[in-house]
Amino acid sequence: MTLEEKLAQIVGFWEKGDGEVVAPLQGEFTREQTLDEATRHGLGHITRAYGTRPVDAVERARWLWNLQRRLVRETRLGIPALVHEECLTGLSAWRAATFPTPLAWGASFDPDLVAEMGAAIGGSMRTLGVHQGLAPVLDVIRDPRWGRVDECIAEDPYVVGTIGTSYVRGLQSTGVHATLKHFVGYSGSQSGRNFGPVHAGPREVADVLLVPFEMAVLDGGARSVMSSYTEIDGVPVAADPTLLTGVLRERWGFDGTVVADYFGVAFLHLLHAVAGDLGEAAGLALAAGVDIELPTGDAYLTPLAEAVRAGRVDEALVDRAVLRALRQKDELGLLDATFDDEPPTSVDLDGPEHRRIAARLAEESVVLLSNDGTLPLAGSARVAVIGPNADRAEALFGCYSFLNHVLAHHPEVEVGFESPTVREALAAELPAVELAYERGCAVDDDDRSGFDAAVQAATSAEVAVLVVGDHAGLFGRGTVGEGCDRDDLELPGVQRQLVEAVLATGTPVVLVLLTGRPYAIDWALERCAAVVQAFFPGEEGGTALAGVLSGRVNPSGHLPVSMPRSAGAQPFSYLHPPLGGNGDVTNLASTPALPFGHGLSYTTFVHSELAVHAQVPTDGRIDASVRVTNTGDRAGDDVVQLYARDLVGSVTRPVAQLVGYRRVRLEPGESAVVTFSVPTTRLAFSDRDLVRVVEPGDVDLWVGPSCAERETEGRLTLTGPVHPVGVDAARWTTVSVAG
Amino acid sequence: MTLEEKLAQIVGFWEKGDGEVVAPLQGEFTREQTLDEATRHGLGHITRAYGTRPVDAVERARWLWNLQRRLVRETRLGIPALVHEECLTGLSAWRAATFPTPLAWGASFDPDLVAEMGAAIGGSMRTLGVHQGLAPVLDVIRDPRWGRVDECIAEDPYVVGTIGTSYVRGLQSTGVHATLKHFVGYSGSQSGRNFGPVHAGPREVADVLLVPFEMAVLDGGARSVMSSYTEIDGVPVAADPTLLTGVLRERWGFDGTVVADYFGVAFLHLLHAVAGDLGEAAGLALAAGVDIELPTGDAYLTPLAEAVRAGRVDEALVDRAVLRALRQKDELGLLDATFDDEPPTSVDLDGPEHRRIAARLAEESVVLLSNDGTLPLAGSARVAVIGPNADRAEALFGCYSFLNHVLAHHPEVEVGFESPTVREALAAELPAVELAYERGCAVDDDDRSGFDAAVQAATSAEVAVLVVGDHAGLFGRGTVGEGCDRDDLELPGVQRQLVEAVLATGTPVVLVLLTGRPYAIDWALERCAAVVQAFFPGEEGGTALAGVLSGRVNPSGHLPVSMPRSAGAQPFSYLHPPLGGNGDVTNLASTPALPFGHGLSYTTFVHSELAVHAQVPTDGRIDASVRVTNTGDRAGDDVVQLYARDLVGSVTRPVAQLVGYRRVRLEPGESAVVTFSVPTTRLAFSDRDLVRVVEPGDVDLWVGPSCAERETEGRLTLTGPVHPVGVDAARWTTVSVAG
Repeated sequence: MTLEEKLAQIVGFWEKGDGEVVAPLQGEFTREQTLDEATRHGLGHITRAYGTRPVDAVERARWLWNLQRRLVRETRLGIPALVHEECLTGLSAWRAATFPTPLAWGASFDPDLVAEMGAAIGGSMRTLGVHQGLAPVLDVIRDPRWGRVDECIAEDPYVVGTIGTSYVRGLQSTGVHATLKHFVGYSGSQSGRNFGPVHAGPREVADVLLVPFEMAVLDGGARSVMSSYTEIDGVPVAADPTLLTGVLRERWGFDGTVVADYFGVAFLHLLHAVAGDLGEAAGLALAAGVDIELPTGDAYLTPLAEAVRAGRVDEALVDRAVLRALRQKDELGLLDATFDDEPPTSVDLDGPEHRRIAARLAEESVVLLSNDGTLPLAGSARVAVIGPNADRAEALFGCYSFLNHVLAHHPEVEVGFESPTVREALAAELPAVELAYERGCAVDDDDRSGFDAAVQAATSAEVAVLVVGDHAGLFGRGTVGEGCDRDDLELPGVQRQLVEAVLATGTPVVLVLLTGRPYAIDWALERCAAVVQAFFPGEEGGTALAGVLSGRVNPSGHLPVSMPRSAGAQPFSYLHPPLGGNGDVTNLASTPALPFGHGLSYTTFVHSELAVHAQVPTDGRIDASVRVTNTGDRAGDDVVQLYARDLVGSVTRPVAQLVGYRRVRLEPGESAVVTFSVPTTRLAFSDRDLVRVVEPGDVDLWVGPSCAERETEGRLTLTGPVHPVGVDAARWTTVSVAG
Repeated sequence: MTLEEKLAQIVGFWEKGDGEVVAPLQGEFTREQTLDEATRHGLGHITRAYGTRPVDAVERARWLWNLQRRLVRETRLGIPALVHEECLTGLSAWRAATFPTPLAWGASFDPDLVAEMGAAIGGSMRTLGVHQGLAPVLDVIRDPRWGRVDECIAEDPYVVGTIGTSYVRGLQSTGVHATLKHFVGYSGSQSGRNFGPVHAGPREVADVLLVPFEMAVLDGGARSVMSSYTEIDGVPVAADPTLLTGVLRERWGFDGTVVADYFGVAFLHLLHAVAGDLGEAAGLALAAGVDIELPTGDAYLTPLAEAVRAGRVDEALVDRAVLRALRQKDELGLLDATFDDEPPTSVDLDGPEHRRIAARLAEESVVLLSNDGTLPLAGSARVAVIGPNADRAEALFGCYSFLNHVLAHHPEVEVGFESPTVREALAAELPAVELAYERGCAVDDDDRSGFDAAVQAATSAEVAVLVVGDHAGLFGRGTVGEGCDRDDLELPGVQRQLVEAVLATGTPVVLVLLTGRPYAIDWALERCAAVVQAFFPGEEGGTALAGVLSGRVNPSGHLPVSMPRSAGAQPFSYLHPPLGGNGDVTNLASTPALPFGHGLSYTTFVHSELAVHAQVPTDGRIDASVRVTNTGDRAGDDVVQLYARDLVGSVTRPVAQLVGYRRVRLEPGESAVVTFSVPTTRLAFSDRDLVRVVEPGDVDLWVGPSCAERETEGRLTLTGPVHPVGVDAARWTTVSVAG
């Protein structure tokens, strides 16, 4: 292979529409490169073939097949390109299914269902000739101010790891490669600002931030990893061989590809200033272990070629990356592909199976935060539906949905999609109820001119359902999403004022939050009749919410994040050491407004009889069983949560740590015994020498309705010597349920 | 020495009044130990002999001398105790001088004057038989939400290091030992919560947090260091041999004592849970390098003795600590002291020299943030003085002042002190002006009943001077101070509303801030005629502020911290890498409301003709000269600030870094050339292997009115090989001024 042929295999080509912005600062790097120029020596990746414009997928597939045939037939090596696309909440393509956002997956605590979703997404991708999806996002939530929390699963690394691994397994079961994002640290950005530097030591990186990636690589077999834009303690990850090679490949044995986050290699020069020019940046990234520069090679190829020819970058580093890229193509069958087959002539990217999964996941993800009995609405004859997210279908989707990508960049385009809004779904759900609707205000401006009509509607109703929250967007064009950070955690715009104006009428208020992050709503918890939290629930989300409101669906979601008290209380994690939660040393509340794991139901569950062995060897498994009983009068799902606290460690340990969970369906009066088999390695941590160990000593275990409450508890002693743990520490807790 | 005699030497005894609280959770540890019990085997430290009650110092000295005589005459070894006391803003004793708080020292950018202050404090301590002062605080400010920012000097480690070292030199010139607090990391507490865990990697610790300590140990010869309460990346500092022994003693050669922050050893068990009991906690602390447990041995002695006798703690660790404690006593002349001399029969702890230093430091520390010409007030005939801090002498003092310690704990006691309030001082300063006074509101409640009178007073005046800000206190009993953290950075209580009510009258408002932290006051900068920031300016602070307002004093303080936009924008440091300041990747403003280094004058200064050599070896010195000219019509002090930016590094480098500064007095029209000789080691940082190095490459240098503005600039190239730097990296920039 010539140098040009090699370099062509480790970059992408991006045929964009005018004015599309899908990566920060992309204007700095992209120039008008023609397809001819870009493919003369072959091509590594085709970037976002379907994702940013409403183009018929069949038509686009034809374009893609033609491009692939041309690469096969008209380049010297005849190697087709690997096609990648965004797919976080569904394949980013016109008329493809849009599933709930990752926070909703977290809230469902249902990895099996997430795996089904992953498989459904992968099936659509495979049909359309897409080989790699840029998902899931495995960043552990550290600060809700960050706009990309919308793309994250949870603040607990085990939940992120289990749910994220399930997504990977599902997606990859179809032959499509998953991409773990963003390896690693991005969610720790200072003050929740996108691209803020990360202040974290190696222990926090190893014990919290890396855990989900380790699980998805080792247990999920993920085939690709995306390097993060960020820096940790002064070292940009895209230039860090310790993480990209030492941890990922040498410790974990990962043998897939590492792709750069869009322009992430160029940023080593332009934003991090650890390289004096783009060629040096390319050399640093290759040496660290980045294999492929995305989305394009525009800014990368010439300086890298020059650097190699001048001897400033070792060609062996290029060869290493090219070999990995080609190995991935081989795995995908691309080295033998001829594209003589015909592209699909009709596709259904949003069929009944997609809809079923989307509906169930949406239903399982709705979190009932509080309820004085006003919900379900069954008995009400006149309901006012109010709020900027009540009748806005876009409000069901996160920033990495096809819909919001297109809306953000092509507001003139009529996308067209079939997702009933909350208002529409409620009307269908409750045909006998008289529904009045007022928008009240927009999501994010200060116009209160709609307040009067909203107040009037509420006054005439028995119950007011207020649907408020976020508008997801990109780079400042939303209230949440990439580049849409917050320095306060009040509801955007005048939405709180709208809710307070309606509360003042005395009509009971059911507050429904459609958001991409948790907001500071303790005031609403105090004053509203009920509060329902939905995290962008996707195309079936309106119907799912209407089902919860009507009572058709018994809510069963639980908080995958703490509900904050304020932006000024951030960052916060329920995984804090005892020191961080001590209220005697600061005047400020040391608890969040609602704890991780909280979530109510229309029935009640009691947890009892936690049984654990008194002694467990440090290299063993903790077997714990607990009885859960549905003590209410309707069927429902409980999420049984098993927490642990290592009472004394050689370094500080969190006051609570989820070590196992299980969704269980129970009829009224029914009870079940849930048995957890927790590998002790779930309690492992990095000791003073940064060796991962399980230490002997006492451990508290408990089950309760959230991390903060011990409904039934026990204590055991880990016995024996300190157990050094290799790479297998991230294995799952196994759970069984007996009636 | 018996084990009991040894242990007695490494603990303190605290004769407290009822109900006094001077350390978090102290109730957990102190019991009624009699003086007899505590001194039977000798005694290491006498804790706070003068500091927490208004007792006549002469009377207290008699008590102290008697106690010392008894230790000399009635214990077997005859060794007197080392007496320590708080002394941050002056000796904590009744009727002793109270100087401005550390933020004011930082704002003065005048290390020489701070050294004078240190010597004055030390003189009083020596007179009263106090051997060690628990100051200065060298925590680099990382987050203004933290209440103890009140005790800190600056957000720049070089300013903290130079000013802090000057304090040490001054204090120790009298024979009194300084104590560097809080070694290390405390200011990085998560979300600015006191005792929050610190998220920081080893590079941030080495390159930012440790720097002032290194300077004060190596350049200042500090004789004692206090270990911090906090944990960094999971390791409590009080149990960390890497920091307390590896860095402090082995790398820096420190041979003084390490004292625990009050109850900090017990906290290893009780708050950090890295020790299973108090004996284990003691063993961990001794092994790490903590020598002396303060304030008492109540909770420490018995479990430690048991642990030693049981062989769980090596007695050699006790011996090491005892030897260090005795060596310190020897240095202080205590091993030979008989206390046959008489204690002082009269003392003046607040004489003319104290007052002169306090006044000058207060004057130099007032920062004029904005001014439309309303200041100085000279021309106004009718001035309204309004606000909760206008006529409250306590508002001049920080939380570690004797006054506020006593007020917090003995509110019933009449302390009595002679410090004119701003209102009183202004009346004295402007006898011809008609002054109306209204309090308007309290510092921190929501009572607006005084607003009307305040508005009326403002309406009748030509100018309204609003004096607002903090009330310093301890453990929640203040708006700033230890345990008084904030989750928003609005002015406490209804003070902003008071200012806005007065602004609405149309009368020009001069806003004077008497605070212990920077608040989010961008709204005031936009709307007030002038804004003056004073950081608790001490006993002469009212007069100094009146002098600035009247025009007698030309303001010359500069911001030692960035003025924040909001709590939700925290943490923030002007020392951020380029990534952290890029506004293209987040919707939020990436700058503070006002930058580090900002400060106006009644005259104007122009900086020009920055001259630097084009090439400097990596192991050399950067000689830079700049002309500063007073282009206004009155004499004044400028603070010439030299900043640098290392353009490309092997790890990310800050966008600006102060490398030298100098206060210069200039008559109208006068100019001077300031020449800086900056050791290249000021640009050193920890490379990928955590080796401190100076790397070759381009460096921008500039001088301007703050870190954010380049008024005159130059570029140089550091040449030659990478220069590994030992422990000498923290040497000062030398500065000379030629007319």
